[in-house]
Amino acid sequence: MTVKETLNGHRQEPPLKRAEEVQELLTAVQELIVPFIRAADEDADVKHTGHGLAIPGRGEGPRTALVEQHPPAELKSLLKLNIPEKRGGKEELISLVEKVLQYSVNTWDQGFMDKLYASTDAVGLVAELLLATLNTNAHVYQVSPVLTLVEKHTTKYLANLFGLDSEHSGGISQPGGSASNSTAMVIARNTLYPETKTDGLGGRRFTIFTSEHGHYSLEKAAQIIGLGSKNVISVPVDASGRLIPTELERLVKESKSRGETPFFINATAGTTVHGSFDPFEAISPIAKAHNLWLHIDGSWGGSVVFNPTYRASRLAGSHLADSITINPHKMLGAPVTCSFLLGRDLRQFWSAMTLPAGYLFHNSPSASVNDIYDLADLTPHCGRRADSLKFFLALSYHGAQHFSDLVATGYQNAEYLLALLDDHPDFLTISPDPVPCHQVCFYLARGGLLGEDAEENGRVTAAVAHGVIARGFMIDFAPGERGKFFRVVVNGKTRRGTLDGLVKALAEVAAELGF
Amino acid sequence: MTVKETLNGHRQEPPLKRAEEVQELLTAVQELIVPFIRAADEDADVKHTGHGLAIPGRGEGPRTALVEQHPPAELKSLLKLNIPEKRGGKEELISLVEKVLQYSVNTWDQGFMDKLYASTDAVGLVAELLLATLNTNAHVYQVSPVLTLVEKHTTKYLANLFGLDSEHSGGISQPGGSASNSTAMVIARNTLYPETKTDGLGGRRFTIFTSEHGHYSLEKAAQIIGLGSKNVISVPVDASGRLIPTELERLVKESKSRGETPFFINATAGTTVHGSFDPFEAISPIAKAHNLWLHIDGSWGGSVVFNPTYRASRLAGSHLADSITINPHKMLGAPVTCSFLLGRDLRQFWSAMTLPAGYLFHNSPSASVNDIYDLADLTPHCGRRADSLKFFLALSYHGAQHFSDLVATGYQNAEYLLALLDDHPDFLTISPDPVPCHQVCFYLARGGLLGEDAEENGRVTAAVAHGVIARGFMIDFAPGERGKFFRVVVNGKTRRGTLDGLVKALAEVAAELGF
Repeated sequence: MTVKETLNGHRQEPPLKRAEEVQELLTAVQELIVPFIRAADEDADVKHTGHGLAIPGRGEGPRTALVEQHPPAELKSLLKLNIPEKRGGKEELISLVEKVLQYSVNTWDQGFMDKLYASTDAVGLVAELLLATLNTNAHVYQVSPVLTLVEKHTTKYLANLFGLDSEHSGGISQPGGSASNSTAMVIARNTLYPETKTDGLGGRRFTIFTSEHGHYSLEKAAQIIGLGSKNVISVPVDASGRLIPTELERLVKESKSRGETPFFINATAGTTVHGSFDPFEAISPIAKAHNLWLHIDGSWGGSVVFNPTYRASRLAGSHLADSITINPHKMLGAPVTCSFLLGRDLRQFWSAMTLPAGYLFHNSPSASVNDIYDLADLTPHCGRRADSLKFFLALSYHGAQHFSDLVATGYQNAEYLLALLDDHPDFLTISPDPVPCHQVCFYLARGGLLGEDAEENGRVTAAVAHGVIARGFMIDFAPGERGKFFRVVVNGKTRRGTLDGLVKALAEVAAELGF
Repeated sequence: MTVKETLNGHRQEPPLKRAEEVQELLTAVQELIVPFIRAADEDADVKHTGHGLAIPGRGEGPRTALVEQHPPAELKSLLKLNIPEKRGGKEELISLVEKVLQYSVNTWDQGFMDKLYASTDAVGLVAELLLATLNTNAHVYQVSPVLTLVEKHTTKYLANLFGLDSEHSGGISQPGGSASNSTAMVIARNTLYPETKTDGLGGRRFTIFTSEHGHYSLEKAAQIIGLGSKNVISVPVDASGRLIPTELERLVKESKSRGETPFFINATAGTTVHGSFDPFEAISPIAKAHNLWLHIDGSWGGSVVFNPTYRASRLAGSHLADSITINPHKMLGAPVTCSFLLGRDLRQFWSAMTLPAGYLFHNSPSASVNDIYDLADLTPHCGRRADSLKFFLALSYHGAQHFSDLVATGYQNAEYLLALLDDHPDFLTISPDPVPCHQVCFYLARGGLLGEDAEENGRVTAAVAHGVIARGFMIDFAPGERGKFFRVVVNGKTRRGTLDGLVKALAEVAAELGF
């Protein structure tokens, strides 16, 4: 092909009108999302009745701001998803956005207490819009200078909060807590046994340790990185769900005596179900004595670090960790996903992860870790979304004190719910008092008596949890020895009226169902 | 704590005003991002001169819409990043957003041809805003019913495009191409050697195969999952950068004869530097004969699947793959990140990845893979951003034909640039004609003669690439036998005037620098 054949002259090229298109579509969509959020705002004022505002819908039972729920097959036929050959344009887009909003769960609704996160807030939306506008990668400084500095600044700040305050401490963002945990495991293995990076595991049988109540991502990571899920050694917990250090030590020794290679302890700050914090100060000497990496999975409870009181009571010893996961998208309202893996020494991250890729990294090889600005070189990834911007903007907008308050208010809300349930004749709480974190676990138990049949107890729990959805409350449940029990997750923005209404709704639905 | 102590009565709770705050902040930020995009729109009209519009700034050389560039230490002092205790509020937020926009790379600028992606578009921004509003996780159906169906629908559609059209085909979204590739490797290993999931690698020495020009994420994945980077066997390529099947077969046999366990072939659709497509039809029989998993890393070039002509010429045999990575955030303008791992049989994804986590997954164990709606169970992750919505909305808004056109126009643009450079006395192109994909590689070479000193050639390339930034062009370079060479990435929206201007800018900067 010659230039002559293809040249059609730049003078004929029509002007770009992308800015106008952006303005038009953003304005149109803003007109849909603001009422979506407002519906949740308004619903909040009636939550104490045990019913959200009824909204006309086609789902099971009355629809509230929370959700119009449908099983998959039914929702499929309502949505009629279709990928057209021809342009649908603005009209089709708006109609789709309307449908997405109509049938999605409204996490801005106060009744959304199902998972360890809730809605984000105004600054979260702005941050996501800004990231989308920048549409770049936090892999090399050249294409993301500001975002790179923001990530370094934010992670250093967070590492310092946990007491990881050496010259080389810091962190990286990761696409979720599972990714942060698995990356920690790889960094630990490659740091303690550097030959595994190049040669593989060889004949070694590596083992890792986490409590019975640890998150499943540890087991998932272990199978992914080639250790095998059987080599995740489950450490017993005490009555309040905390890993028992003497048991840990016993299991480490047993593993060694079997010829295995223990290398990694996962201690949890805020377990998924009960919210327990493992005793980091007692675990650290065991890690040191046996040359094991100490990781803290603070995906959930790590965020209490923002409050000095709860930091002292829940996170004592966090400065002894080699690495820590924190997900500000859970307790702190940063948009999903916002997770960081923090480390006491980023040189370990770099040694464990760097690979020569001359077409991407133009780093000088002599750079000290503080001078590494091509951050992908510290991570398992190449292209990376700059999630740190979301939390950095939230910290600037709200101030750090706001996050300290969110933590404290979340605890007060959990205590309040626990007290409501304890005072009610028909519930049996199983969370300790004071609550370890922001969740409350309990059974429905008429007159305080829980049935003997664990399966039946679980059936009741699942049925009542399902039943309160139509009233504008979504809560989860988890398996236990006496059957599935409720787990309600509150946060620093949950209102007391919402908790009053939840207890009312649970009791009424249980009665309606004849339990 | 008793209820009485904590109850402060719902009647006193002030109404929530989140909707108003969202409206106020979004409107304010929209007023900043629209001009940011407009600056790039306007700059496009002068790009053919070899200079972007000069904008007052404090960086090196004149600032254009593309970027005001500063080295890290200097940018640090300009940004003065700081995390305050007290609320900064709207004023501080707006000031920060202004700074972020001022010092970031404007990927909407036509001159951004540095990486394999460019800006997104209006529908991309809307989709990100909508995802942020929903702020939920695509891990279980209960909290993301619509997003789950969208992900299943979009991945099934994409799998079908590649010819993976069995009953059980489909896919999952992943946070980037590296993640998609490494997940494919784990699924392959756990499918072919299921005991590794529970027991670990044992004494086996697993090997994988990828061409010399394959992406570094394969090596990274291999070290992460415990194989060791040495066990990535590099397969020679032919003159146009395509893996040589006979060499692959030889290397597989040699690996076996050393007692290793070959299990995974990565074939690339669109290599990072040259854009080559490996010969999938010739590779597949080798994979079958030796019981190896055939993965196609189409992070970059997989997107040509949208155009029937290029699908036929570049992706012939893609239906023979076991898994395929495609990143619509690269060639197709979906917001970063948007990556999918597609598979011929999602039952393999499920078997490889599922773990019992009763507190999260309430799936019936008898579910067929098509009836799995708790999608995290098919992935390495727990919390997951529903990136599929971004591409689904783009497909609806633009129509699939738009993406076919984008692919074709991108090729025409690359051919045009290649022709411009070939016609110019002072450049030496090294990309084949016709170009395999949307990038063009070349050296500066006065009178068509490239110097003998590879290091000096590389120094010239780096200096000129740096020099054109101040003129509003950002292009990358990669190492080669004769020194570093330029790699320019065009796309379906690049204008001819931009390419005219780029060649002009390169020649002028080279002359200014005395090369």
